[in-house]
Amino acid sequence: MNNFDYCNPVRIVFGKGQISQLPNLLPKSAKVLMTYGGGSIKSNGVYDQVKAALKDYDVVEFGGIEPNPQYSTLMKAVEIVKSEKIDFLLSVGGGSTLDGTKFIAAAAKYTGEDPWDILAKGAPVVDAVPLGCVITLPATGSEMNCLAVISKKETTEKLAFGSPAVFPKFSIIDPTVTFSLPLRQVANGIADTFVHVIEQYVTHPQNTPLQDRQAEALLLALIDEAPKVFKDPQNYDVRANLFWMATQALNGWLNVGVVQCWATHNIGHELTAQLGIDHGRSLALVLPGVWRSQRKEKGEKIAQLGRRVFGITEPDLDKAVDATIDATRNFFASLGIKATKAEYGVTDEVVQAIAKLIDSRGVKFGDRQNIDGAKIVEIMSLCD
Amino acid sequence: MNNFDYCNPVRIVFGKGQISQLPNLLPKSAKVLMTYGGGSIKSNGVYDQVKAALKDYDVVEFGGIEPNPQYSTLMKAVEIVKSEKIDFLLSVGGGSTLDGTKFIAAAAKYTGEDPWDILAKGAPVVDAVPLGCVITLPATGSEMNCLAVISKKETTEKLAFGSPAVFPKFSIIDPTVTFSLPLRQVANGIADTFVHVIEQYVTHPQNTPLQDRQAEALLLALIDEAPKVFKDPQNYDVRANLFWMATQALNGWLNVGVVQCWATHNIGHELTAQLGIDHGRSLALVLPGVWRSQRKEKGEKIAQLGRRVFGITEPDLDKAVDATIDATRNFFASLGIKATKAEYGVTDEVVQAIAKLIDSRGVKFGDRQNIDGAKIVEIMSLCD
Repeated sequence: MNNFDYCNPVRIVFGKGQISQLPNLLPKSAKVLMTYGGGSIKSNGVYDQVKAALKDYDVVEFGGIEPNPQYSTLMKAVEIVKSEKIDFLLSVGGGSTLDGTKFIAAAAKYTGEDPWDILAKGAPVVDAVPLGCVITLPATGSEMNCLAVISKKETTEKLAFGSPAVFPKFSIIDPTVTFSLPLRQVANGIADTFVHVIEQYVTHPQNTPLQDRQAEALLLALIDEAPKVFKDPQNYDVRANLFWMATQALNGWLNVGVVQCWATHNIGHELTAQLGIDHGRSLALVLPGVWRSQRKEKGEKIAQLGRRVFGITEPDLDKAVDATIDATRNFFASLGIKATKAEYGVTDEVVQAIAKLIDSRGVKFGDRQNIDGAKIVEIMSLCD
Repeated sequence: MNNFDYCNPVRIVFGKGQISQLPNLLPKSAKVLMTYGGGSIKSNGVYDQVKAALKDYDVVEFGGIEPNPQYSTLMKAVEIVKSEKIDFLLSVGGGSTLDGTKFIAAAAKYTGEDPWDILAKGAPVVDAVPLGCVITLPATGSEMNCLAVISKKETTEKLAFGSPAVFPKFSIIDPTVTFSLPLRQVANGIADTFVHVIEQYVTHPQNTPLQDRQAEALLLALIDEAPKVFKDPQNYDVRANLFWMATQALNGWLNVGVVQCWATHNIGHELTAQLGIDHGRSLALVLPGVWRSQRKEKGEKIAQLGRRVFGITEPDLDKAVDATIDATRNFFASLGIKATKAEYGVTDEVVQAIAKLIDSRGVKFGDRQNIDGAKIVEIMSLCD
């Protein structure tokens, strides 16, 4: 096991009716900027619950944060934080709103020239406006980590940053707010949760049996629970279980002491930046290509996944790998996710453009940092 | 799933050579009380490593904290904290030293009349001297929780308390310090880890598939890894894996949203208070009795444990329960732990005395809070 340093101070307030806890969680007399997205919180009752809980607070609102939150939008909120002397940011929405809010928090305290450098150049975030959230979508795990992914339309970039300064002080997870989610978003969230676990687990054997078993625990539970939400969308326990899985898939717990491989996310982000593909769907599309391309490096872990999670009994390693890739694709299909390039308009031209972009940035992806533009072309040729 | 409120802010600094990180973890210019136990840290090199790392700090030492740390001993340290104006407590040792240090931290700031009320009457702990630890024994999980168990010889009591105020600010886990542990203590720690998971998992079905799978993940990994430490005690990865399992077995992760049953620990503590039985061994002795006595309530979860962890395929519920109890006893036996009453001098008189004591305190144990003195007598009659 590699050495590690782990601290996750996020307070999770989980369950029915917990939005009413807001006055017990926010600092007294804070001036709050409430951030949200396209307005779905106004139709599902969450906005009203939050406003009722905040009745004794001075609240400024900032709506309209997009899926794949845009730098230009977020910078408008940064201006408000400064001009209104905001003390606390409250994100009310899904992972995009929360990721955007983390960036607002960091950018408002950034002392360098251009806050985009936080994303493009890894400029360190040493301070941030404190933030909390009411999270409404089980997917990104942003509610219990210090990571965020931000997009810039003008340059077709979608980049990530992380800093302990942007850990939410608290995250309220009320599974009842997910009852009204479109099932397409539910499916995307399940795919995202699944691939979050995979990126921390399917690398190469590292003699970390607990981390392996914990990753498998999450996948086993997810695969069991996923079909239930489509059959019985109003079942509270199913919604609660799926939300708790999404939160735990990316709170840093599974990856302590191990080498990770985020190639599927890295390539998926590029596809989303180019074509606007839903994040979860981009992952479902790319993952089989990554595995087929890295069959030699990842074969043992892919087969372990197949045997321990999908119940594959095939003794031959190569055949077990194939069976696991099929089982994974079938799982995505069971969510109603079509994972073919044609479905999303991923042409050779788009792939070539991404490959060129990655090489021009001088970055490489994967646990061995050996996936360059040419490898991305190979991976994308092996996706369908 | 039940509603829950979870926050565990402990920073874990894990791996080889991490004791040297102490100056980066302690507050600058803190006056430190370094607490430890019977002196094994002086023979295994840990004391010297800590002293070297603390060379620029003002350090007062307090050694001699016993296994099952004694109230009277700890109160001497409380006096030192006050008279020496100590800012920070650094526990260097196993779970007993750390539990004792948590009590010192709380008692030094306690404003009521008698700090024993924290244990005997559940008097709230609202403040504590900040503390951190170098943990040297994989067992209690105290390094990542806010719990402590303290004993009082004079009244044969062994009682627990918990408060967020006594979360360690950091815990250094260097698995190499466990190379020199007597194998008897290693076995005790594995039994303790096993039963910590069990007390959070073997209750009744609660439709919490992730928590179930996570408990099973830890048990599967523990059962796989345990034999290796006896065959190859100098294997770093094995030591690291076992330590990380012990830490995670009781950091609050497994029990969010679920009802727990701590009957085995509660009864085990009484046996230790009466007879001085090693904590891990007391648990191995009591657990089969609890399960046999609560076969009706716990049968489904016991069988689930058997099927998912021990590979039991018996379809009949009752027979699966019996097979799981046998498998669990065999696991303890594989650690060299003898789990019979005769082995530890647990006579009928001792059991009757405990039963009387529990009834006189007016407490009841178990997830249904229905285990009274008479039930304890029944449980102990079913142990062997």
